[in-house]
Amino acid sequence: MNLSVNEDRLMNELDRLASFSDVPAPAVTRVVFSPVDLQARAYFKQLCTDAGFLIREDAVGNTFARWTGSDPTLAAVGTGSHIDAIPHSGRYDGTVGVLGGLEAMRALREGGFQPLRSIELLLFTSEEPTRFGIGCLGSRLLSGTLEPSAGEKLMDMEGLTLNEVRADAGFTGALESVRLAPGYYHAFAELHIEQGPLLERRGVPLGIVTAIAAPASLRIVIEGEGGHAGAVLMPDRRDAFSGAAEIALALESAARSTGSIDTVATIGQCEVFPGVVNGIPSKVTLGVDIRDIDPARRDGVLQSFAEVCERVGRERRLKIETETVNADAPALCGSMVIDALAESCRERAMPFDRMVSRAYHDSLFISRVAPTAMLFIPCRNGVSHRPDEYSSPEDIGRGTLVLAATLGRLAGIHIQP
Amino acid sequence: MNLSVNEDRLMNELDRLASFSDVPAPAVTRVVFSPVDLQARAYFKQLCTDAGFLIREDAVGNTFARWTGSDPTLAAVGTGSHIDAIPHSGRYDGTVGVLGGLEAMRALREGGFQPLRSIELLLFTSEEPTRFGIGCLGSRLLSGTLEPSAGEKLMDMEGLTLNEVRADAGFTGALESVRLAPGYYHAFAELHIEQGPLLERRGVPLGIVTAIAAPASLRIVIEGEGGHAGAVLMPDRRDAFSGAAEIALALESAARSTGSIDTVATIGQCEVFPGVVNGIPSKVTLGVDIRDIDPARRDGVLQSFAEVCERVGRERRLKIETETVNADAPALCGSMVIDALAESCRERAMPFDRMVSRAYHDSLFISRVAPTAMLFIPCRNGVSHRPDEYSSPEDIGRGTLVLAATLGRLAGIHIQP
Repeated sequence: MNLSVNEDRLMNELDRLASFSDVPAPAVTRVVFSPVDLQARAYFKQLCTDAGFLIREDAVGNTFARWTGSDPTLAAVGTGSHIDAIPHSGRYDGTVGVLGGLEAMRALREGGFQPLRSIELLLFTSEEPTRFGIGCLGSRLLSGTLEPSAGEKLMDMEGLTLNEVRADAGFTGALESVRLAPGYYHAFAELHIEQGPLLERRGVPLGIVTAIAAPASLRIVIEGEGGHAGAVLMPDRRDAFSGAAEIALALESAARSTGSIDTVATIGQCEVFPGVVNGIPSKVTLGVDIRDIDPARRDGVLQSFAEVCERVGRERRLKIETETVNADAPALCGSMVIDALAESCRERAMPFDRMVSRAYHDSLFISRVAPTAMLFIPCRNGVSHRPDEYSSPEDIGRGTLVLAATLGRLAGIHIQP
Repeated sequence: MNLSVNEDRLMNELDRLASFSDVPAPAVTRVVFSPVDLQARAYFKQLCTDAGFLIREDAVGNTFARWTGSDPTLAAVGTGSHIDAIPHSGRYDGTVGVLGGLEAMRALREGGFQPLRSIELLLFTSEEPTRFGIGCLGSRLLSGTLEPSAGEKLMDMEGLTLNEVRADAGFTGALESVRLAPGYYHAFAELHIEQGPLLERRGVPLGIVTAIAAPASLRIVIEGEGGHAGAVLMPDRRDAFSGAAEIALALESAARSTGSIDTVATIGQCEVFPGVVNGIPSKVTLGVDIRDIDPARRDGVLQSFAEVCERVGRERRLKIETETVNADAPALCGSMVIDALAESCRERAMPFDRMVSRAYHDSLFISRVAPTAMLFIPCRNGVSHRPDEYSSPEDIGRGTLVLAATLGRLAGIHIQP
């Protein structure tokens, strides 16, 4: 029997999925539960149904497509990723793991294989924090990392609660029902673009992820005093934006001075109130993201940052409040899945590196309830979250083939290459 | 004959005018040609008509209410200010000069006086730069400071041109027709809250403005490179927001180090693109305002600022573009009007200070075509452009009384107090 991936079909489906977007190509904007997200989900479900897989959706919109194994009583093998896309991003982040997962399952079936364990493809709801300020919403609830009662309190920028938004999208039922039963997955593997430059720089086509970094996300609210830009003298000012600028530079410096290249810090959001050219800013809100693969080192940066906020607030007579949106622990990947990925590469004589993921993924949370690992493919210039995000059909096809072999191996079939 | 101001009537009208707002009291938002601005204009015109003054509106919505003098062939005496209000500001900035001007004219008429020269009250269109990015739109066109062809190219944040917006508001006709004929005004006096703390600190009820500072407004566009907040290493980043932060602190430092308290610099606007917590900012737009009463000193700060932008761009590999929105010359006030204001104060034994205006006003531009001065009244804590902006009825009444006496004096009547 022969295992082969239909690269053209997969690339066509990735292109079609990218067309469900609120902005013109090549950019993609697909915020969770927006009309284009719902259209993209319908397209995905149709593809799964056409392939003969059974669809199930949970109360938060996580979508499962199951290929029932010959022993349905055994725990399933899972794969999947997300299709939501931050504003003005690209077409491969997440989607390669969703449609690549589907193609891997189709390749196994079309090759005539029948797994012992069921194989299940998962589309996770809201991996991106765009709408509700918290990433991996679906996998947090699946893994019990986010309390359903806390989930219900989430609100989007327009003041709509998660319950209102999901109900409008057709997803009702208690959030409690989302959590997976213990032992639900035997193993989980996620295919994803690297979102970094290492594989491309080294000329290695595949990366097996052994650990996933976790971000700490903070929301900083700086309050000073407004006033007329002409009339208030410089020494009398309590300018919230000047305070924000000082904090931003101090954070950058703290992240650069840990001694490790793995520490990164970003201020991706800055909202200024009242936001007029001749008015002193009275209030500034910052969105801050700090990451590392070493939790102690990350917490060291968090600590320096807290001290900077305290000092800037004191010196500039500003009120500075820090809210920790999330500060998850990094994860080590499951050796069973790492080994299965490595064997599937070796059998096909495909070079791979072991690496860490600096970006975080739903696998970070699934790893808490099942042995989990990730398979990375190169992306051009290490770029992602941008319209020019790109992975070649060859790299996508190669990753999909290794994923298929790995899912088969984990589900109780061994395919000789 | 007796000259007296009806303080209750004036305060009631100020309160009513404040109710035309897009936000709840005490805050006021009244952007030029918005529905609430048009309602407020209708209210103002009704008050003028009720008082027996003749209304004229020009092509950009500057509104004139004329009390015809006994010799209508003589150049008129003007007074007035603006009623547009920046988002979340207060109820006295501008409005005191408009409704106070009306009350001054009514006080003269109700006192039985008849001026030789016509007295004309002016409501200037868009003193605030909120909508079109340029302040004093009406007075720039009246004084020929802004070319009509440049005015036609102005655009608001939604991409609507000035021509579209004014036509929707009912103001058509060529912008060329707005410019005042030479010698149109014999003299011009504007009543205004100080927007600074000096009168209140000194316990002086009135300020006669002898010079008006002028702002330089800049728009800075900083372009770097976006990317995933977890995946792009710190040394590889070209983060537009970090560049903006460095520029902001350097500008603050430049303004503080000129050696003069009269130098001020403000960054009131900062827009971050794409503006997501896990994306590196690829583009930041800043709105910058730099002011001084000494043009050479102000230009020195502008020069330092340009050097900072050049350096930051080079060091951080960012593309930084600076657009000068306006950089007007400061103005000296007209001695005829200053003297008339001073005489009117002295006759009533009202203490006054001579001072400069750090905020700019339509009088800055009217001073180019007529002898012009301003009369300041105290405002609490020097605060303006905020919901808690406040001037007392006594201070407003006192300013209005001196304005009435001054308008009478300039128009050819002398009122013994």
